[in-house]
Amino acid sequence: MATTALLVLDLVGTFAFALNGALTALRTTRLDIVGVITLGMITALGGGTIRDVFLDALPPATFLDWRYLAVAAAGGLIAFLTGHHLDRINGTITVLDAAGLSLFAVTGALKAVDLGFGPAQAVIVGAITGVGGGTLRDVLIRQVPSVLSSGLYAVPALVGATVVVVADLLDARGPVAAVAAAAVCFAIRMLGVRFGVDAPFPPGGRRREPG
Amino acid sequence: MATTALLVLDLVGTFAFALNGALTALRTTRLDIVGVITLGMITALGGGTIRDVFLDALPPATFLDWRYLAVAAAGGLIAFLTGHHLDRINGTITVLDAAGLSLFAVTGALKAVDLGFGPAQAVIVGAITGVGGGTLRDVLIRQVPSVLSSGLYAVPALVGATVVVVADLLDARGPVAAVAAAAVCFAIRMLGVRFGVDAPFPPGGRRREPG
Amino acid sequence: MATTALLVLDLVGTFAFALNGALTALRTTRLDIVGVITLGMITALGGGTIRDVFLDALPPATFLDWRYLAVAAAGGLIAFLTGHHLDRINGTITVLDAAGLSLFAVTGALKAVDLGFGPAQAVIVGAITGVGGGTLRDVLIRQVPSVLSSGLYAVPALVGATVVVVADLLDARGPVAAVAAAAVCFAIRMLGVRFGVDAPFPPGGRRREPG
Repeated sequence: MATTALLVLDLVGTFAFALNGALTALRTTRLDIVGVITLGMITALGGGTIRDVFLDALPPATFLDWRYLAVAAAGGLIAFLTGHHLDRINGTITVLDAAGLSLFAVTGALKAVDLGFGPAQAVIVGAITGVGGGTLRDVLIRQVPSVLSSGLYAVPALVGATVVVVADLLDARGPVAAVAAAAVCFAIRMLGVRFGVDAPFPPGGRRREPG
Repeated sequence: MATTALLVLDLVGTFAFALNGALTALRTTRLDIVGVITLGMITALGGGTIRDVFLDALPPATFLDWRYLAVAAAGGLIAFLTGHHLDRINGTITVLDAAGLSLFAVTGALKAVDLGFGPAQAVIVGAITGVGGGTLRDVLIRQVPSVLSSGLYAVPALVGATVVVVADLLDARGPVAAVAAAAVCFAIRMLGVRFGVDAPFPPGGRRREPG
Repeated sequence: MATTALLVLDLVGTFAFALNGALTALRTTRLDIVGVITLGMITALGGGTIRDVFLDALPPATFLDWRYLAVAAAGGLIAFLTGHHLDRINGTITVLDAAGLSLFAVTGALKAVDLGFGPAQAVIVGAITGVGGGTLRDVLIRQVPSVLSSGLYAVPALVGATVVVVADLLDARGPVAAVAAAAVCFAIRMLGVRFGVDAPFPPGGRRREPG
């Protein structure tokens, strides 16, 4: 795939997660502008940073390339300035999170392929990239991360990454395949949210012993 | 030590931590199958991933080698399917955690030795490997990590790593020394749990000022 | 700047953060000596470890160089033994945190410059180094990190790092510039604490929807 197309998708994902993280900060806790933008940037840049640790591609691209930093900071600032106008902030947060998840699952997997990793590793790194930033966000604001509590969160990331890796194996790589894979991930995630779908729960009822 | 023996011990530790993390997820929070297996895999693979960051051995072996991924996923799945049959889930969780702690303290220290690090660094990396996965687990489910709250948690890991590093310095390296060192760590940890042993508390009484 | 001067400032910052982390452990939760020293060491060594991941300078200096380990352990032990004598433990914690923040912002930025990174990257790494250890500390004891909740926490770190990087660009590098930059950071941070200064809050009032 053209490097430019991959970069564009990655930056769109960064922007979506920066808006998402900053809006989450506005909704959840009483944070000032620095806290809001910081949480936006950590959400936006965290997944790619963890990805580059796993791929031994340090220093992380999220930190070396000013475009990621600029897009993440801009997303945080825009959310800070406009978030109070949003009537349905929770819905917006969910859509942005699904968008970031989808784009990062795909771009993370493609970066692994480009660096010569095998298909299984590429799928796993894609999923880690997708869920990484949101997991850092949730830990910092003391919520149980979505990747644990929401059945259809890791699964769509794995599916999206798998679609794009299989397309690559079939020589069908390109912007179209990448966008299609991200759309598949996004659709599964949003359907899961819309219909409250969870993966199966443990057999034998919910166990809740005192710790 | 034969590489095979080290690999076997490392995989057994991975399996113990995967069971432990998944059972903790079953006990603590209402997670579906994906959340349970995810927490099992993070617990199982987290310590080795942090170890490889400290040893500059990226990409992490836990991620490159499919055996770690397979064992971790299998452990999480088995715990998900069978956890509700366990009468004494808390006791099982404690034993599995001590087993993972012990094996990873030893294999982590040996990996550092193999890569040419000095004895002090090997002991520290061993302890970090042992406590790392459980610490990630506790942060994700919002508990104070055992390494902070339980006096005899870091100490047995340090002792086990020290035993195996000293054995290596004395040319007594081998599977026997490794298993013996892990057994020492396991015994100290379980005795601490059994008798509620803690390390000394601060002099002057427990201080609890409002933050 | 002379390498020795940089090392001294880095070790002073390590010591300040070790005292701070251990005193925080004494104040916040019921931890024994191992827990107190562990939290002190994580606070003291965490920022430099994250810095070295971002700078691709692994294995981390905090782990390879015994002086960092010794200073961090000593700081934790001293705080454990003497913390109960402190009348104003909260004030002491705040001052030590500001000192560590200031010194690490400066030394982190200088390390990035020495490794050939550009000015923007050096400033960012300096800020990350300054806030990193305290953020790990707060996550482990389940508090919202200062970098999110306190307006003037990231800002003074960015200012201190900028001052020392600009001085370097102007060929005015040296111990004097480093100490002056740290003093600027420290002064801004302490003024912010003293007068309860925050950065601007979101327009339109504080939003607090149920999650």
